[in-house]
Amino acid sequence: MVHVVRSFVRPTSAIVEAIAQFAPSTLHEAQGRRGDLDSRIKPVAPGMKFCGPALTASCHIGDNLMIFEAINLARPGDILVLSAGNNPDQGGFGEVLANTCLARGVAAFVTDAGVRDGAALRALGFPVFSLGLCMRGTTKETIGTINQPVVIGGQLIRPGDIVAGDDDGVVVVRAEDAGEVAKASQKREEYEAKIIEACRQGRNPDVSERQAVMKAKGCAWSS
Amino acid sequence: MVHVVRSFVRPTSAIVEAIAQFAPSTLHEAQGRRGDLDSRIKPVAPGMKFCGPALTASCHIGDNLMIFEAINLARPGDILVLSAGNNPDQGGFGEVLANTCLARGVAAFVTDAGVRDGAALRALGFPVFSLGLCMRGTTKETIGTINQPVVIGGQLIRPGDIVAGDDDGVVVVRAEDAGEVAKASQKREEYEAKIIEACRQGRNPDVSERQAVMKAKGCAWSS
Amino acid sequence: MVHVVRSFVRPTSAIVEAIAQFAPSTLHEAQGRRGDLDSRIKPVAPGMKFCGPALTASCHIGDNLMIFEAINLARPGDILVLSAGNNPDQGGFGEVLANTCLARGVAAFVTDAGVRDGAALRALGFPVFSLGLCMRGTTKETIGTINQPVVIGGQLIRPGDIVAGDDDGVVVVRAEDAGEVAKASQKREEYEAKIIEACRQGRNPDVSERQAVMKAKGCAWSS
Amino acid sequence: MVHVVRSFVRPTSAIVEAIAQFAPSTLHEAQGRRGDLDSRIKPVAPGMKFCGPALTASCHIGDNLMIFEAINLARPGDILVLSAGNNPDQGGFGEVLANTCLARGVAAFVTDAGVRDGAALRALGFPVFSLGLCMRGTTKETIGTINQPVVIGGQLIRPGDIVAGDDDGVVVVRAEDAGEVAKASQKREEYEAKIIEACRQGRNPDVSERQAVMKAKGCAWSS
Amino acid sequence: MVHVVRSFVRPTSAIVEAIAQFAPSTLHEAQGRRGDLDSRIKPVAPGMKFCGPALTASCHIGDNLMIFEAINLARPGDILVLSAGNNPDQGGFGEVLANTCLARGVAAFVTDAGVRDGAALRALGFPVFSLGLCMRGTTKETIGTINQPVVIGGQLIRPGDIVAGDDDGVVVVRAEDAGEVAKASQKREEYEAKIIEACRQGRNPDVSERQAVMKAKGCAWSS
Amino acid sequence: MVHVVRSFVRPTSAIVEAIAQFAPSTLHEAQGRRGDLDSRIKPVAPGMKFCGPALTASCHIGDNLMIFEAINLARPGDILVLSAGNNPDQGGFGEVLANTCLARGVAAFVTDAGVRDGAALRALGFPVFSLGLCMRGTTKETIGTINQPVVIGGQLIRPGDIVAGDDDGVVVVRAEDAGEVAKASQKREEYEAKIIEACRQGRNPDVSERQAVMKAKGCAWSS
Repeated sequence: MVHVVRSFVRPTSAIVEAIAQFAPSTLHEAQGRRGDLDSRIKPVAPGMKFCGPALTASCHIGDNLMIFEAINLARPGDILVLSAGNNPDQGGFGEVLANTCLARGVAAFVTDAGVRDGAALRALGFPVFSLGLCMRGTTKETIGTINQPVVIGGQLIRPGDIVAGDDDGVVVVRAEDAGEVAKASQKREEYEAKIIEACRQGRNPDVSERQAVMKAKGCAWSS
Repeated sequence: MVHVVRSFVRPTSAIVEAIAQFAPSTLHEAQGRRGDLDSRIKPVAPGMKFCGPALTASCHIGDNLMIFEAINLARPGDILVLSAGNNPDQGGFGEVLANTCLARGVAAFVTDAGVRDGAALRALGFPVFSLGLCMRGTTKETIGTINQPVVIGGQLIRPGDIVAGDDDGVVVVRAEDAGEVAKASQKREEYEAKIIEACRQGRNPDVSERQAVMKAKGCAWSS
Repeated sequence: MVHVVRSFVRPTSAIVEAIAQFAPSTLHEAQGRRGDLDSRIKPVAPGMKFCGPALTASCHIGDNLMIFEAINLARPGDILVLSAGNNPDQGGFGEVLANTCLARGVAAFVTDAGVRDGAALRALGFPVFSLGLCMRGTTKETIGTINQPVVIGGQLIRPGDIVAGDDDGVVVVRAEDAGEVAKASQKREEYEAKIIEACRQGRNPDVSERQAVMKAKGCAWSS
Repeated sequence: MVHVVRSFVRPTSAIVEAIAQFAPSTLHEAQGRRGDLDSRIKPVAPGMKFCGPALTASCHIGDNLMIFEAINLARPGDILVLSAGNNPDQGGFGEVLANTCLARGVAAFVTDAGVRDGAALRALGFPVFSLGLCMRGTTKETIGTINQPVVIGGQLIRPGDIVAGDDDGVVVVRAEDAGEVAKASQKREEYEAKIIEACRQGRNPDVSERQAVMKAKGCAWSS
Repeated sequence: MVHVVRSFVRPTSAIVEAIAQFAPSTLHEAQGRRGDLDSRIKPVAPGMKFCGPALTASCHIGDNLMIFEAINLARPGDILVLSAGNNPDQGGFGEVLANTCLARGVAAFVTDAGVRDGAALRALGFPVFSLGLCMRGTTKETIGTINQPVVIGGQLIRPGDIVAGDDDGVVVVRAEDAGEVAKASQKREEYEAKIIEACRQGRNPDVSERQAVMKAKGCAWSS
Repeated sequence: MVHVVRSFVRPTSAIVEAIAQFAPSTLHEAQGRRGDLDSRIKPVAPGMKFCGPALTASCHIGDNLMIFEAINLARPGDILVLSAGNNPDQGGFGEVLANTCLARGVAAFVTDAGVRDGAALRALGFPVFSLGLCMRGTTKETIGTINQPVVIGGQLIRPGDIVAGDDDGVVVVRAEDAGEVAKASQKREEYEAKIIEACRQGRNPDVSERQAVMKAKGCAWSS
């Protein structure tokens, strides 16, 4: 069995940039309400965001052995996505690894474990998405995988899938769906911009549409 | 059965302003430690606060059909209070609806569900109190209620009750109790201001009072 | 039985300052991954931090009677550590008590309960570490202890032990171990600084070390 | 303000018996998916069940002062419903109070707190529905209410409302809706019995109905 | 896009029987500590167990539309595995569907949602593994998938993978690994039987092995 | 530093038997509402119970290396109390270790981690108290301690302290307090027996006592 796959096919930067235009919540809606990771996976500071191809890794719960080699295999712009057992009570990533990521051009780190050195991460401005801050360390003893499909936050992520995150959490877009998702996102955003503009002018086309649904379902208004 | 009640009796603005002078924790204490909603209902950004009459709505868990019509019935200064099944894992309110609220003069939004577009809500400065950020969307399929009493965060809230929120969470003050609660809050605040001033000058009248209770209960000090 | 012990042996300020140089996560690692309190005990605002000798107290769950006398017995620089039943749903500490602490020179407050007046605490800049903000008050009816060993966040803390906290949470260092822990922390920090510097220059000595472990455990790379 | 209301209007035993024929899940569905209490409120042993009019009480969190007088005011067949702050970490009801209930004919006890003496309760066979077993005691210091509306498990319960519970949890049926709910429940049960019978004979009318919905929504089958 | 795949390749009954010999915890260990679903997914009554090929389905959170057609496509011995959004607060499976499963020969039902009619399920003896009992119903409005790979309880399950469950929870064994896992499980069980026999005779070979590790790691014994 | 202490002073069997007469909830009350472990630590099957001197051990989170030697040092009647990081998501104790315990006369096992082989443990009837069933295994790599004080479930337990458990959970009684606690428990039980007897005869002395407190606190009854 191979544990570490050295490389994977990355989406073109044009595709990544097309997806990066949109907020994760828009991408999630545009692809049919799919792809959202467990909402407990959040940025360590408000305002952090990212978009890029996933470099995937998995570690045994409470261990971070594979993370060093994963960073070593990264290319600029990659998002390091580490599945580590859905465990907020240990932090296997902190200031040193964040600096290592920055030196290699890794654009963000996403995990279903805790992380530490929260104040330092905030000062660095490196986007880290996790189950929260926890100083308790991990071991470096057990083999996991690199660049194989992983399950994290209730989603399957394959190397090269596009992941995007902001204050709302993280969403995955399949590489092969990215073009279509970008288009649908664009359409959704244009629609929403119109609604917002209409609201500012005192109209709201959404309301009459919802009232129609309400009436159709038997809703009764007081006189 | 009537689902949507179009209007309700709002407290006078004098009453709302009287309550708005005080922090929710003060109001909670002043009315006999009552009225606090589940403390998991918190602002999406520190520092958000509000006070006003509740326009109440309820949606089926995972649905937000009623919210559009609820905003439509709002008057400036209303607080939209939406009971939605105690469900942090779906977000049926975000940037578009926040803009709709702002256009109608809704002063804040309170729910026992998730919300999304956290970064946009922060930028708008519109006070949103919820179970947290979650990008996962809702359906718009099921009838609920508008302007009928709702249970949210362990409290009953009726249309026209006054709700107030800040970093500590949300409290409800019954419209009919508001005058009395404002007075009791004023008294409490004056007392606390005196204690703080005394502390700064090196005295603390509270300590001797507590020591008396401790002695009465049989507390023993080391020599 | 004695409930309140008036005084305890504090570590020298030289020892406290030696420990205060290091982040809690570093101290935790340097003493063999021990001493970290439950990571749910966090600062009420990012960036708060502290280091000092623990003045310990315990209250019955839902009660804060002992806290007033505990502050009364404090000396400047003390950290008030209150064990209160692992209960996020009541807040027995807020603006008044924070001012009382400041007047007495208490350097921080740590508890396994909720606290309230979050906005005021943030404005004061007084470091408060807790299970979160909750406006619901406590009673003042039941005797607890002061300056006796307490269990909080899964750790035993004795009066005079050194406690330190930042965004990552709180760690306890036994007074008698502090000298050794400071030395080990220094060593660890120097090592980490070298790794970070090496990373910035495009090298990472850690990687080859981890690869050696991976190979020894049977890890297989793709060709 | 009155805290204790001595009596309340109970539904007729005919109405209670009509409701008692049906499982709580059936009642919940039959009244439009309403009335279910937080599903964490469960029997202390599988198989416990009850149905009867609610005698309501509320206690301060961590206190059980009012429970004694509540039992004192009970009539045979009443269900004692105690709102106590959504707190699984204290148990203010156990063997002694269960015996007191049995002596007064109270038919079941429902609370949003912990309870204790689990082995004894099981042996007595007295239906107790709670947030779980917890030996930690409560105080008896603070006034609450008896026979006033209470909020518990996310539902408003008024004295005389009918509550029913089994392994699935607890549901409330408004006294004034009970006749209609019983009819709707009967209809639902007959329909379900038919479906089950059809399944046993190898047919399932539900499937074709669902397939029609699936097709209408655009569902695609593999060839 | 195809939503419903009508059929899938099932493992031979010889393979299923080979796996069915072993407890899930043994299978989990034997395949290198992999494949265990989130331990919150448990049987509705102690003692329930199952082993068989997974017929996979996914529903939108709070919806159960797809479940009817999924049962319709089942063959005797199939395990219906339904991914439904990690949501304990709604129950879309109960007595009627359990009877439907039994009529079709479905051997067990596994989901990451709540279920209802707990007492009836226990009486039927049909193995149901879920996040717990909850009477709150679901809608039947949204298309999901059938017989496509699903993520549930942190694991990817493909149609035809073997799933096994008992009191400890559920484990998935890849169809293609099943032969090897059965052999490794057999070996593990024989080893454990020997240890248990040795213990009964007053010896324990494990202890000296662990003592050797302890000594190698620097463990010190008191004299 | 010594990690493993070979022996400790056990309380006399007369003392253990005196404590074993009483339910944990009674012991907890009798010693002033102290000593109860986190109520999430529960028996793997209803009805399990134990009482005996604590043989204490601690393991690194996710590791069970020390447990083998701990059992090796046990004497008949000892209760093995293992602090393992408050981690329900890994199970480092199961059928083999339960048999090892039985062979050595260990009377029960208590931990703040998961355990596995639930069906086998139930069949053996060996009392195991834990955070629940979880099949996910642990490593055997890290040194912990044996027969040194441990913190578990929010309580400090020293070797030789008496621990008792039943359906309600676990309580610790300090060895030096045991005589006094047994007496107070006896008194409490006699009082409770009298109340229960009085209830059966239609009287309840408790009620008038509580009514007196209610009146003193200002409680108002409806006429």
